[in-house]
Amino acid sequence: MAHIDLKNDLPGIRGPMAYRPETAKPLNELAEVLLRDDNNTLSRGERELIGAYVSSLNDCFFCQNVHGALAQHYLQCNMQLIEDIKMNFRATRISEKLKTLLSIAQSVQKSGKNVTAQQIEEARKQGATDLEIHDTVLIAAAFCMFNRYVDGLATWAPADKQVYIDRAPGRAAEGYINFDLYK
Amino acid sequence: MAHIDLKNDLPGIRGPMAYRPETAKPLNELAEVLLRDDNNTLSRGERELIGAYVSSLNDCFFCQNVHGALAQHYLQCNMQLIEDIKMNFRATRISEKLKTLLSIAQSVQKSGKNVTAQQIEEARKQGATDLEIHDTVLIAAAFCMFNRYVDGLATWAPADKQVYIDRAPGRAAEGYINFDLYK
Repeated sequence: MAHIDLKNDLPGIRGPMAYRPETAKPLNELAEVLLRDDNNTLSRGERELIGAYVSSLNDCFFCQNVHGALAQHYLQCNMQLIEDIKMNFRATRISEKLKTLLSIAQSVQKSGKNVTAQQIEEARKQGATDLEIHDTVLIAAAFCMFNRYVDGLATWAPADKQVYIDRAPGRAAEGYINFDLYK
Repeated sequence: MAHIDLKNDLPGIRGPMAYRPETAKPLNELAEVLLRDDNNTLSRGERELIGAYVSSLNDCFFCQNVHGALAQHYLQCNMQLIEDIKMNFRATRISEKLKTLLSIAQSVQKSGKNVTAQQIEEARKQGATDLEIHDTVLIAAAFCMFNRYVDGLATWAPADKQVYIDRAPGRAAEGYINFDLYK
């Protein structure tokens, strides 16, 4: 049971979003720009993956499953790859560029100060642009917020991972703005 | 020097906000609703204080000074009280209710999962409402994002704390939306 009476029985972040639409609005707008806007050289799948990875580091069950399933949907891979990336992304078949960005996200999850000039240099060597590095840092930072919001209020989450996989195509089509929290 | 070329020499979060206005917009809208909207039973000073406190726990020099000075401005106290709160809020003369909310914020800074039912119960006993608890959790979570954004890109910050104190009245009047990043 959530720490406060959310006046709804929605899972995860949807509960507090329905409870407090005034803050839900900019939170969803941020997610839309960062994760879904087409004017971005990182693919939607890569961006969702960064979010899912940071959520797994923060041990947030709801977020890592929602965004892991979205990453899988966009990347058209199997869920095992997503699980392997969360366990040890360096040992997977993803691009070297994405590995350097996940390394930056991994540092941001601990503290902004943990990001080193060497990590930035390695990302650049693999072709990452300044904007891609900027967005990686902000996606990782934003998930440190979303995860704390979801777990800090003790929201509930469906335990069956298939639920998240089944919902992903609809969520991908719908986007983050104006989606029906109750659907 | 920042990790990426921000194409401006603005301090702290203003650098990446000017660099990426698309993400700055929802970030500032979130700050406005959470920290400044008048339709809130937590005062602006109390909300800025929660942000400053979490920023000090995250060791973010820019954010703890900007929001510490804003808290001091709204609360009409001296800066020593803000410093004392950051060092050990339990030993200060702030209200017992605010102490229970800062305790929740302190837990959120580590992980959402660190917030306990007992902390929520203690906040309620001191008169905190569900909405105040919700906003405390989201303010603390949001500063875990802002702090990582500022430090993850290695932005610079004025070393002289008086700069932040001098700017606070203007920033308080202006608010977070549509303020001139270059002023």
